[in-house]
Amino acid sequence: MKIILVGATGTIGRHLQQALSQKHDLLTASRHNSYLKVDITQPDSIWEMFETIGRFDALVSVTGHGVFGSLPDLKNDDFYEGIKSKLMGQINLVLIGQHYINAGGSFTLTSGILAEEPIRGGTSLSMINSALNGFTMAAATELQNGVRLNTVSPGLVEGSVATLGASFPGHDPVPMPRVVNAYIKSIESALTGKVIKVYG
Amino acid sequence: MKIILVGATGTIGRHLQQALSQKHDLLTASRHNSYLKVDITQPDSIWEMFETIGRFDALVSVTGHGVFGSLPDLKNDDFYEGIKSKLMGQINLVLIGQHYINAGGSFTLTSGILAEEPIRGGTSLSMINSALNGFTMAAATELQNGVRLNTVSPGLVEGSVATLGASFPGHDPVPMPRVVNAYIKSIESALTGKVIKVYG
Repeated sequence: MKIILVGATGTIGRHLQQALSQKHDLLTASRHNSYLKVDITQPDSIWEMFETIGRFDALVSVTGHGVFGSLPDLKNDDFYEGIKSKLMGQINLVLIGQHYINAGGSFTLTSGILAEEPIRGGTSLSMINSALNGFTMAAATELQNGVRLNTVSPGLVEGSVATLGASFPGHDPVPMPRVVNAYIKSIESALTGKVIKVYG
Repeated sequence: MKIILVGATGTIGRHLQQALSQKHDLLTASRHNSYLKVDITQPDSIWEMFETIGRFDALVSVTGHGVFGSLPDLKNDDFYEGIKSKLMGQINLVLIGQHYINAGGSFTLTSGILAEEPIRGGTSLSMINSALNGFTMAAATELQNGVRLNTVSPGLVEGSVATLGASFPGHDPVPMPRVVNAYIKSIESALTGKVIKVYG
């Protein structure tokens, strides 16, 4: 399978790169330091990436960020930073990629546990992750030619405990092999329109 | 109670205006033809509205739109039209309004059934309604001074059957008194962080 991995240099991306490249023709993409350069906040940059690649069988996105902050301090611009990146960046990978993907192919995006369980300062990420889950359920019903779409919703992953653990009190870290497996399930199963939850 | 009703001229808004004005000091707001003029796509316009009103006890929003279209035709700009209006317009009513609302007050926003049940051409609305539901769950945990936040998620309402019914095959229309009651429950109960579903 020819698979595009967007966000290949991130915490989950590095592990996915290792796992997926053993079995597939894997093309890595990220803002810097990958085979393909793409800035998902810019639709033109996404079009350019697909023009460079041409047809493909699966796209996995493990990229995009949002802004943390307590509600009294959060401003319109803080929400838009995440909307442009994690939300519309990933949605545009599907909106544009649907015109390049092979029949029977799949898209797999990434949301996260904050869609269901809020943490202090995480309001904009709860909004974004919920939006991605809703998009997934609906868009999957309209993709053509048997193309599938799922979103993996990880909890606090093992590799992020050092940097993010303090913001997730009481969250059991999710072992990375379970997270990797969720993406493999999306790519290789018949599932579509699903939020694949991998919580600790 | 001093209540601001944003979207007073809409299908649900007209009924809410009638119901709420019997018992409360109701200030109506909309883009045109209301006591207060506000364009929720412009944060400056929202600041101005609150500066004009000063302190208040409850805000109800039944406003905002999104773009319908089949997935192969939907573009980045189509999604942003709804993001600026129904999504960030309503979120900004809370982000800005939190600095003007009285202790123990409440915000009530509006999402919709497409967060859970997709219809053809409704992907961007499914995304937006899910985003509002996620925002509600999270933001409610960080509002100060006992201020509450809920979102009413209506199904196809009676008054919209003529214009929208064909896009909602098999949906039982929701009687308007049930919809009005859901907003009253949000305003006058102790609920917070809830998506109050009013499906047919």
